[in-house]
Amino acid sequence: MDIEKANTEATERMMEAQPVLVGVGKALDVIPGMRENLFLHAGPPITWERASGPMRGAITGALIFEGKAKDEAEAKALVESGEVELEPCHHHQSVGPMAGLTSPSMLVYIVENKTHGNKSYSNLNEGYGKVLRYGAYSDYVLERLHWMNDVLGPTLGDAIEAGGGIDIKALLSEALQMGDEGHNRNKAGSILYLKALAPHVAKVAKDSGTACDVLKAIGDNALAVLNPVMAACKAMADAGHGIEGSTIVSTMARNGTDFGIRVSGLGDRWFAGPVGQPKGLYFPGFTAEDGSGDIGDSTITETAGIGAFAMASAPAIITFVSGTPKDAINTTLEMYEINFAEHKYFTIPPLDFRGTPTGIDIRKVVETGITPRLNTGIAHREAGVGQIGAGLVRPPMEVFEEALVAFAEKYGI
Amino acid sequence: MDIEKANTEATERMMEAQPVLVGVGKALDVIPGMRENLFLHAGPPITWERASGPMRGAITGALIFEGKAKDEAEAKALVESGEVELEPCHHHQSVGPMAGLTSPSMLVYIVENKTHGNKSYSNLNEGYGKVLRYGAYSDYVLERLHWMNDVLGPTLGDAIEAGGGIDIKALLSEALQMGDEGHNRNKAGSILYLKALAPHVAKVAKDSGTACDVLKAIGDNALAVLNPVMAACKAMADAGHGIEGSTIVSTMARNGTDFGIRVSGLGDRWFAGPVGQPKGLYFPGFTAEDGSGDIGDSTITETAGIGAFAMASAPAIITFVSGTPKDAINTTLEMYEINFAEHKYFTIPPLDFRGTPTGIDIRKVVETGITPRLNTGIAHREAGVGQIGAGLVRPPMEVFEEALVAFAEKYGI
Repeated sequence: MDIEKANTEATERMMEAQPVLVGVGKALDVIPGMRENLFLHAGPPITWERASGPMRGAITGALIFEGKAKDEAEAKALVESGEVELEPCHHHQSVGPMAGLTSPSMLVYIVENKTHGNKSYSNLNEGYGKVLRYGAYSDYVLERLHWMNDVLGPTLGDAIEAGGGIDIKALLSEALQMGDEGHNRNKAGSILYLKALAPHVAKVAKDSGTACDVLKAIGDNALAVLNPVMAACKAMADAGHGIEGSTIVSTMARNGTDFGIRVSGLGDRWFAGPVGQPKGLYFPGFTAEDGSGDIGDSTITETAGIGAFAMASAPAIITFVSGTPKDAINTTLEMYEINFAEHKYFTIPPLDFRGTPTGIDIRKVVETGITPRLNTGIAHREAGVGQIGAGLVRPPMEVFEEALVAFAEKYGI
Repeated sequence: MDIEKANTEATERMMEAQPVLVGVGKALDVIPGMRENLFLHAGPPITWERASGPMRGAITGALIFEGKAKDEAEAKALVESGEVELEPCHHHQSVGPMAGLTSPSMLVYIVENKTHGNKSYSNLNEGYGKVLRYGAYSDYVLERLHWMNDVLGPTLGDAIEAGGGIDIKALLSEALQMGDEGHNRNKAGSILYLKALAPHVAKVAKDSGTACDVLKAIGDNALAVLNPVMAACKAMADAGHGIEGSTIVSTMARNGTDFGIRVSGLGDRWFAGPVGQPKGLYFPGFTAEDGSGDIGDSTITETAGIGAFAMASAPAIITFVSGTPKDAINTTLEMYEINFAEHKYFTIPPLDFRGTPTGIDIRKVVETGITPRLNTGIAHREAGVGQIGAGLVRPPMEVFEEALVAFAEKYGI
């Protein structure tokens, strides 16, 4: 068996994927396998019992949003009775930041990989502060979610269609020349997104007040493009999944309790272990003790070769996640050690336009003892609070070791 | 006489200036000393006889725009007869990129320095390609100028006022964290500008089609914010001008024939010498032999501590002006040698957030033999053609030597 050839194919497919944001649709209508009683969440599979505080908070909020529960006790009862089911976003070609909750009537972005034809989905970004994805579910959070579903989402959908879609790969490539790394720092990407949308929003919005509100919501949210970017990374990573004999990681995701990976040549099996605690900078009044375990599907960015792997492009991010500009450079340099390829389209100006490290090779992780570095937001450990900081985290080494053992068993090495 | 103290005051005033874009107005109505027959141009004073090709082209275009001439021959006659007068933008608190032509009925940006109260002005940016500022004046160029004056400018003006003004210093500070240097690369700044404008454009535009056109014109022009940035730099530099005993350069400008500087402690006297030929990258089909001499007021950016001085912030610019990312770092490092201060608000992430070199000291230029490095666009040497490249250039050393001699004479050193 030729692992090198398989890995070349997997990473080439990831890099040659052409993810285009084509529209917005209702999760129930567009996400494959979505059902009336199904709630998608970040990371590998999880039960209510094992779920972290922010995950429980987000499930509760999503159930209130859908009119199925009034509080956390009702939410718990619905989930534990099996009346409401939980499944990973990743089982449905989807990704969601932090808790990643995606419920049947929520609007989601639709991304299509024009090279290989696969589609992917992600919910809309709520902005900063009190937000469902960090486990908050106050009246304010729910009102905002309804406005997003009733006004923001439909207008964005019409604007995206009016513009003939937005090439997210080109957008990302440009944002990496503008100080973004595409995961925690999406400042440039979000205003490039605004730039692509704005003329169409002005045209399609039902009135000038709505256009104004939508343009303000996108322009004021430096993470506005994170969800389309995540869906684009999912489309790229999925294009590299399922290559017989490949040791390339095609999924990394966390649910607040477990960190799970999937490997291109090992089908849909999860290799999971306990999540780490992010190290970083906390908002005033909070410390590391308040932090939840690592959570979210946003590590799909590192899986696709951006995020912390592209940190050398984003020296200014260290004011947000801690460290020095030199650490940002070193993070990227270290990641070349465990990745199979250098990206053909995502390049890093301060490293003489070298391609970003792309395609984590589980063999290299185990051989070098270097686990992937991941950028992340930090949620409060309790349901209902929200974001308290941002930083860096590493996945547990054991998941890569287990995956490598499984690879050896499957392929009889 | 305490030169150090004077220079501290001059550079502190430059750095503490707070330039805010407050609106748009007709040049004749808002620019101090503007007259019906007055045409403002870039650089130090110039006559038709000594004017370069692109300057003559731009004067011709502006006269056609105003309905005063039909072609270059008529333009020449009007200027040489004295019926139409030429004066530097800089004599009227104004700046213009490349030829910098500003005619009485053109709309201009109005910037106000909220700290010291002085105002500054700049014309609107036309975008790339065939444009008046590079000396082109075809029907297309003139139609576009009329649309800018009739539709774009009034809408921008209303949007700026509706938003309560735009803090250009804050915008620049953020753009330097996003890979801009604020002179040749204004990609991030221009979409930050779009972000600030978009919700208000949607509200104030006379209809959704106009809003769409204006948002497209701004979003598609990666130099859209250059002119407000230049006006902001002019407001900052002017705040540092006129400090008795200061050796800080408060103006650098070129008209295509002469490169001129003015010095804070030496009043309004120009020290001028022949312009250099920019070195850089040429568009396909053009070579250095086709290039005009260095032209434009846009060196006001370097005068205020950004542009080439901040190139370490903008490694991706080298794809546009030539060189390597390391050259970009070295350009900034070299400029620390001849500048008096490090900027308090404009910082460079790859240099551990060190402030940009700010306040060129004519003593240091002469002592070290290092002239300022300047980024620039390159115009075709003939009238009517337009931009043919971009690159780097240095001013003639003699202007700094003459200024230092004049300083010694004035202050009896």
